[in-house]
Amino acid sequence: MQALVHVTLKKTVLDPQGRAITAALNNLGHAGVAGVRQGKFFEIELADGVDPAAARDQVERIAREVLANPVIEEFTVDLQP
Amino acid sequence: MQALVHVTLKKTVLDPQGRAITAALNNLGHAGVAGVRQGKFFEIELADGVDPAAARDQVERIAREVLANPVIEEFTVDLQP
Repeated sequence: MQALVHVTLKKTVLDPQGRAITAALNNLGHAGVAGVRQGKFFEIELADGVDPAAARDQVERIAREVLANPVIEEFTVDLQP
Repeated sequence: MQALVHVTLKKTVLDPQGRAITAALNNLGHAGVAGVRQGKFFEIELADGVDPAAARDQVERIAREVLANPVIEEFTVDLQP
């Protein structure tokens, strides 16, 4: 079973990296790009035979405690069979 | 219109960051985690009124030329209305 965790800066937090990418793309001629926000994602491979509900709890704990900084970031968890 | 671009290391490329996260999670007691691979993702906000087919072409060019290193990375593009 695989879990996908996406970690992004909260919408209210300034993303200077995304601003820089937006400016670079506009300078390169991609005028249609209005904004970019960058995030991280993690493909977590779980051992076989894990209960899906327990797996979701575990991955959410991992995301909250290890992968994301809950002060400035938010995350989503998708479980894939 | 928004485009999501996911950039990951190719499966054949070693991901030391993912290895480190896997080891850290196992040390923290998450024994069910068999492996982690980390990637980047980008939410690209496109100007309104862009033709979807042209938008996909443009975002794929952006991903190939700017966001990903095609020697070691691969990318996927999802367009969202």
